[in-house]
Amino acid sequence: MCGVIGVFGHKEAAKIAFFGLYALQHRGQESAGIAASDGKLVREHRGLGLVAEVFNEKVLNNLEGHIAVGHVRYSTTGSSTVKNAQPFCVSHGYCTYALAHNGNLVNAHFLRTELEKEGSLFQTTMDSEIIVHLLAKALKRGLIEAIRETMGLIKGAYSIVLLAHDKLIAFRDPYGFRPLCLGMLNGGYIVASETCALDLVQAQYIREVAPGEILVIDKNGLTSYEGVKSERLAHCIFEFIYFARPDSYIYNENVYSFRKRLGQNLAQECTVEADFVMPFPDSGNYAAIGYAQKAGLPFEMGIIRNHYVGRTFIQPSQSMRDFSVRVKLNPVREILRGKKVAVVDDSLVRGTTSRTRIKAIKEAGAYKVNMLISCPPIRFPCFFGIDFPTRGELIASKHSVEEIRRYLDLDLLHYLSLEGLLKAAKKGKKNYCLACFTGEYPIPIDEELDKHIFETTKEV
Amino acid sequence: MCGVIGVFGHKEAAKIAFFGLYALQHRGQESAGIAASDGKLVREHRGLGLVAEVFNEKVLNNLEGHIAVGHVRYSTTGSSTVKNAQPFCVSHGYCTYALAHNGNLVNAHFLRTELEKEGSLFQTTMDSEIIVHLLAKALKRGLIEAIRETMGLIKGAYSIVLLAHDKLIAFRDPYGFRPLCLGMLNGGYIVASETCALDLVQAQYIREVAPGEILVIDKNGLTSYEGVKSERLAHCIFEFIYFARPDSYIYNENVYSFRKRLGQNLAQECTVEADFVMPFPDSGNYAAIGYAQKAGLPFEMGIIRNHYVGRTFIQPSQSMRDFSVRVKLNPVREILRGKKVAVVDDSLVRGTTSRTRIKAIKEAGAYKVNMLISCPPIRFPCFFGIDFPTRGELIASKHSVEEIRRYLDLDLLHYLSLEGLLKAAKKGKKNYCLACFTGEYPIPIDEELDKHIFETTKEV
Amino acid sequence: MCGVIGVFGHKEAAKIAFFGLYALQHRGQESAGIAASDGKLVREHRGLGLVAEVFNEKVLNNLEGHIAVGHVRYSTTGSSTVKNAQPFCVSHGYCTYALAHNGNLVNAHFLRTELEKEGSLFQTTMDSEIIVHLLAKALKRGLIEAIRETMGLIKGAYSIVLLAHDKLIAFRDPYGFRPLCLGMLNGGYIVASETCALDLVQAQYIREVAPGEILVIDKNGLTSYEGVKSERLAHCIFEFIYFARPDSYIYNENVYSFRKRLGQNLAQECTVEADFVMPFPDSGNYAAIGYAQKAGLPFEMGIIRNHYVGRTFIQPSQSMRDFSVRVKLNPVREILRGKKVAVVDDSLVRGTTSRTRIKAIKEAGAYKVNMLISCPPIRFPCFFGIDFPTRGELIASKHSVEEIRRYLDLDLLHYLSLEGLLKAAKKGKKNYCLACFTGEYPIPIDEELDKHIFETTKEV
Amino acid sequence: MCGVIGVFGHKEAAKIAFFGLYALQHRGQESAGIAASDGKLVREHRGLGLVAEVFNEKVLNNLEGHIAVGHVRYSTTGSSTVKNAQPFCVSHGYCTYALAHNGNLVNAHFLRTELEKEGSLFQTTMDSEIIVHLLAKALKRGLIEAIRETMGLIKGAYSIVLLAHDKLIAFRDPYGFRPLCLGMLNGGYIVASETCALDLVQAQYIREVAPGEILVIDKNGLTSYEGVKSERLAHCIFEFIYFARPDSYIYNENVYSFRKRLGQNLAQECTVEADFVMPFPDSGNYAAIGYAQKAGLPFEMGIIRNHYVGRTFIQPSQSMRDFSVRVKLNPVREILRGKKVAVVDDSLVRGTTSRTRIKAIKEAGAYKVNMLISCPPIRFPCFFGIDFPTRGELIASKHSVEEIRRYLDLDLLHYLSLEGLLKAAKKGKKNYCLACFTGEYPIPIDEELDKHIFETTKEV
Repeated sequence: MCGVIGVFGHKEAAKIAFFGLYALQHRGQESAGIAASDGKLVREHRGLGLVAEVFNEKVLNNLEGHIAVGHVRYSTTGSSTVKNAQPFCVSHGYCTYALAHNGNLVNAHFLRTELEKEGSLFQTTMDSEIIVHLLAKALKRGLIEAIRETMGLIKGAYSIVLLAHDKLIAFRDPYGFRPLCLGMLNGGYIVASETCALDLVQAQYIREVAPGEILVIDKNGLTSYEGVKSERLAHCIFEFIYFARPDSYIYNENVYSFRKRLGQNLAQECTVEADFVMPFPDSGNYAAIGYAQKAGLPFEMGIIRNHYVGRTFIQPSQSMRDFSVRVKLNPVREILRGKKVAVVDDSLVRGTTSRTRIKAIKEAGAYKVNMLISCPPIRFPCFFGIDFPTRGELIASKHSVEEIRRYLDLDLLHYLSLEGLLKAAKKGKKNYCLACFTGEYPIPIDEELDKHIFETTKEV
Repeated sequence: MCGVIGVFGHKEAAKIAFFGLYALQHRGQESAGIAASDGKLVREHRGLGLVAEVFNEKVLNNLEGHIAVGHVRYSTTGSSTVKNAQPFCVSHGYCTYALAHNGNLVNAHFLRTELEKEGSLFQTTMDSEIIVHLLAKALKRGLIEAIRETMGLIKGAYSIVLLAHDKLIAFRDPYGFRPLCLGMLNGGYIVASETCALDLVQAQYIREVAPGEILVIDKNGLTSYEGVKSERLAHCIFEFIYFARPDSYIYNENVYSFRKRLGQNLAQECTVEADFVMPFPDSGNYAAIGYAQKAGLPFEMGIIRNHYVGRTFIQPSQSMRDFSVRVKLNPVREILRGKKVAVVDDSLVRGTTSRTRIKAIKEAGAYKVNMLISCPPIRFPCFFGIDFPTRGELIASKHSVEEIRRYLDLDLLHYLSLEGLLKAAKKGKKNYCLACFTGEYPIPIDEELDKHIFETTKEV
Repeated sequence: MCGVIGVFGHKEAAKIAFFGLYALQHRGQESAGIAASDGKLVREHRGLGLVAEVFNEKVLNNLEGHIAVGHVRYSTTGSSTVKNAQPFCVSHGYCTYALAHNGNLVNAHFLRTELEKEGSLFQTTMDSEIIVHLLAKALKRGLIEAIRETMGLIKGAYSIVLLAHDKLIAFRDPYGFRPLCLGMLNGGYIVASETCALDLVQAQYIREVAPGEILVIDKNGLTSYEGVKSERLAHCIFEFIYFARPDSYIYNENVYSFRKRLGQNLAQECTVEADFVMPFPDSGNYAAIGYAQKAGLPFEMGIIRNHYVGRTFIQPSQSMRDFSVRVKLNPVREILRGKKVAVVDDSLVRGTTSRTRIKAIKEAGAYKVNMLISCPPIRFPCFFGIDFPTRGELIASKHSVEEIRRYLDLDLLHYLSLEGLLKAAKKGKKNYCLACFTGEYPIPIDEELDKHIFETTKEV
Repeated sequence: MCGVIGVFGHKEAAKIAFFGLYALQHRGQESAGIAASDGKLVREHRGLGLVAEVFNEKVLNNLEGHIAVGHVRYSTTGSSTVKNAQPFCVSHGYCTYALAHNGNLVNAHFLRTELEKEGSLFQTTMDSEIIVHLLAKALKRGLIEAIRETMGLIKGAYSIVLLAHDKLIAFRDPYGFRPLCLGMLNGGYIVASETCALDLVQAQYIREVAPGEILVIDKNGLTSYEGVKSERLAHCIFEFIYFARPDSYIYNENVYSFRKRLGQNLAQECTVEADFVMPFPDSGNYAAIGYAQKAGLPFEMGIIRNHYVGRTFIQPSQSMRDFSVRVKLNPVREILRGKKVAVVDDSLVRGTTSRTRIKAIKEAGAYKVNMLISCPPIRFPCFFGIDFPTRGELIASKHSVEEIRRYLDLDLLHYLSLEGLLKAAKKGKKNYCLACFTGEYPIPIDEELDKHIFETTKEV
């Protein structure tokens, strides 16, 4: 997963991009980058780490110009290297292009092989480099036409911001897999993965970049072009469940309210005997609040989050095994002792972390633990950008709910039904990608999809 | 403020101390340090920054031995320099002493002047160096007697762990200003500022180190000596209100429950017309939960905390002024729009941050904002270790509640009464230091108390 | 200027490359890089700074494999960025290519424009990226044929080592502008810019890589292919005069001896009245020794070099202007006072540094200063890799020897004649590039040669 | 060994001190530090590494004031830690004292034990801390009297600069073991270990700080006090032979000329059959020049020094053992092949490095190697600051010259005689410390001298 931002028409565009990335940090913590243009020279800076670690005042001041694109990258496939940090910058003729991409292509392998046959060279393992090569090949037919042709060739999820010399361009796949929104700031424009980035820089939300749309922002203002069409939409519903920030609006809906409705629907599906409701913080907070309100149970924070957990963690020796879990979250003995609790969490992926947490809650004295998950069992991998593990590692792909309940040592385990999930959404089922729950992928997936195949170089 | 930990009888004592400091990180983020002893050589490492930044695997592995003391330091008086990082290590004869101190002396100036007259040299501006000099002067009468004599001379707050060559010693001022607890881990002992440090390393809580007690831990086990006595106790009540971690027990009470009772008492004192109750996260969370439950109002998280805020923040230029506040917390427009809200926070110090937050809530659409503070107005400075600003900067020292309400642009502002505060406590009024609310200091304060007077050197 | 090394058939190839680069450090101090291959995966590491700064034990251990290429880069055109550090690595099909290049193309602009017309994308401003693109385009006709075709298209100076998946390839322009030698180490092979790299790793010198030759080293051993031919050779004679290390053999001649002959020829051309001969260390040492022996004058070190001069120098304020010069070299007052001296240096470029040094010598008491330069006046820029300043900045391009003598405040100034220079060489005039002295370039230079034209991106 | 500098009366005193330390870098590369005072506040900065690594523009700008003292420290006894970096700063009363010390005390153990009995605490293992404690104890009798008393108590070598609040003070042991000179710069004063520091900042040399003298520099100018007396002088003659910079004057003599005379005296003592004379650079350069001139033999640089050797060296694996030696120096095959050579070096300590170098020369083709050492055999350890190894490691303490010749595989080995050494000196034998050659220590040495005894703490 990744977060992208584009800024046009602010004299400190790179600083605005920086603050926007700050708000999008939850979408990726591996690397961060910004490219800025004054309409003549493009300056860029990228690095491994959090936004606040990669940038400082001096670097931002050097990123001069009124146009900027930024990117935060989640650790996914490929080695963790600054080479794979975006925006991806190339020069062609007398222009520089800087592209920031959120999403995942499903025909990358095919496209890359074709490009290499024609002599194209690759420096990274990113899908984004393929997109840039396709754009360059078609540039002689004009930039808009080149983007349209490229959109016709690439299959999969892409929410892209592109700095093209003196223009800012945004385009999004026709399914609308990943969010991308448009805002306005003092007469300039901002494009970002989520509205929380607009909020932070006090920009006004205008609308979503439409699925399939090409949006060009330059000194003449905003122009919208039709890119490609598809028969249906496929908004990733997992963005609502877990990924997006609760204060954001994505696909024109607020995430906090969506999650609260998930909790309410859970309460309608499953009543439990409990002294109180508690979340696994922070991802379960909002569904837990919804559940508690609907079920008429008290809400407590039975487990505390330590805010000072650094990212590079000391590996304790064998005798200290559980420390790493406890460092992040600690159960509140006084609250839990002798209590029946209803724990709400957003989802279960591998189940290992939840198991340790449930064990800690029981050791702290809870004598009955019921667990409520605010989505259906995740049984299928995602090929559109969510970094779920392989199918074998998804606990629900191989085990029944009862088996999972026993593995987690729970008194009760309930997953929200698909109907309960869809009832929380404003649009109909056909507008969302539900593949991780149903296995029905909106775009057919090549059986041999292997994103690693080209990794022949490694930075050390 | 600071946090201390001592470990005796674990073959990786420094690692245990490291994890303990991790749990105590909220007590100080400026510097961290650990000294460890194998009974022969004392090894130490100290640095500026968070525990996770100062230490790494290699450094910890080099801190060999079965005894360790650790310290995290809050940025208070004195320049931020590694010289002022603790534990403070000195050698005397063939022994090394490493001392970690939480608290603040009120007769430091007098003691230092006296010591200098006799030829003592000082390298830091820390109270702790004075304590070590006093100990050294008295050492010829034996270590316990030296500590007892020193306790007779120093006035103020001190919870101290001392590594003395092959012993771990803990001693605490007779008023019990700051918490200090004792635990056991696999036959060894741990002394720490709060029980959350014991929890993290899975040690069992035994009891508090008693006010005035000297506790010696060596190869013969635990021995308790009487140090000094006082007529009354003076536990800092602000540790309950704000400073300590909610999952900790201090002065034998759980902090989460205490804070929840503060919220409940607030609800009894003041009923407000509101659609829901929300905290300023995370410090207001627990009183807000108590308030909501008692008042029978829904609990919501109307403002979201960004977990990725780094410590070194880019200073935005003038036009981006409010970003730094929004970077940390963002109001949830959907929840707040058109609503009457009851905001609960733990305390008001300067009032400036609250003002910006309340403004943000209103801009997000809340049309009525009531604020409830879970302690009385803070009107007097603290000389015992809480780093409140000078009296002039404490908003409640110069302004009435009504003036503060207007400054914060609130519809209603209510502070918990002193009675409401004490009703939440298990012990009677005479057991707590309430000086920041009442101005009645348990120890008389020298009018000319000036902690800076000796700062003649500065590290650059 | 740059230095290159290639290693094949050593189980720690990257370490051998590292030591080789150490020996070649004088050829470039801006950046360093190594790519290593185990025949399957190519690992690379590059960075700004000296070889000893860019690499450490851990990085070298991670560069696994029996094949390696390395590069040190001199700060020349283009911004100082790690992007421009070599080896330049790309993947194509299932293979990785890592190329290290010493030299400069004269038709880079033309080639790049042509490549971009066909859709090629560029990430750097280096000639080397052009060479890689040309290779990739021709790869379908096999690697050797691709190199041969590329050699037919590129014009200028190139001594190249190329790691191609499981092979090490070396090729050199047909003029032999820059040195490139072949050695053997325990059955494996080493290719390096200078023999001093072979000496350091105790490899045996075999021969030069011939001008126009393609040398392929793989598991079958060494195979030589004919690449391209030219009518004449054009060895850069300035490598002898200044650039190469005195202990190296280049173009089959030893540099120390060459320089000593330059000094001897100087003595034949110009006798001076002097108490002793002294060099500007270290570049003038060897010609000074030759001069002193031939002239029968004592040799002294009248100016001392400080070996601890760091590369990042503190800028002194105005009142300390001359410090930066004195930091590096200091005249020995005792030796110089009241003496007539003959100073020998290798060359004069801008003349500014020499002026300051001569001033310092006079202030130290020398009452007569004669200067002897061991090459003719440099009047023309170099387009083949030596980073001379533009013509306007070359002092001899605009000023007569007498004018320069007066500018430097010398009693006598003598430049070695072109005949004196050629007399020191083993081969005839037609084998060397003498363009910086004569303006006769071995390859016609495009009038509008502008290496900066494509720089549209900048790393900050 | 160490280098010290003091500056008084320059508005950028710390920058002058920085440049002075640059010139004194050869006296110590382990750590560097500067303390500066504006007469009110003392600011200090110290760190491990070279002067250019420890300081940068920003740090220097923060070291405000017109008085500064600086120090470079050689890696000697004690662990390499920033705690042991000087100047050593302490505060006492309202003043700060910063002391920089070159030399070594011989009664440190006794003094420290006495001080500890009286309750003094130590934070380092440095002699300098003892001196500061003694000063503090006596301060009530005034600063000059305190220094005089301290000089009466400490035995050994000390050249000290002391910043005392608003004064600069220099004092030197009565034997004059280590050099210390006084200069003038624009009306202000500079005190430094060697005159090369004065040269760099363009200060004028005035005189030596006299052995036993106390020199006070304040706003009233320069005042000289008598400190302590001794019956004889004991200038370290090894400063001339190896340690000091050739362009410096120490003990009122120039080092270059001294070394040249050593070479000349060598030539008188021992004629060898040789094609040329060569030094081991750079320490042997000046004696080699003297030898060549006197013997009428050509001077060549048969071995080349690589100027880019970093300080942190990659440890090669077993198969690359000799690389580390070759990285630093490389023999010039062309010059050496088939030749009889006379190698001149300043001294032989352990003999291991020379052995490897001689082996390298022979492998490069020299068929006869004669070696001439410009001092007598070093047979006794130094207790006054030169960091020779223990007696057992000094090759000449256990082996005859013939045994050493065989160990080094030389055709001839000749050491300069003690008479030859003294003949090069201006003053008589009784003015120098010759203990490393003769074993006659100017001050009696305690048999059990053990500088490590107090090391009970270690920084990790």
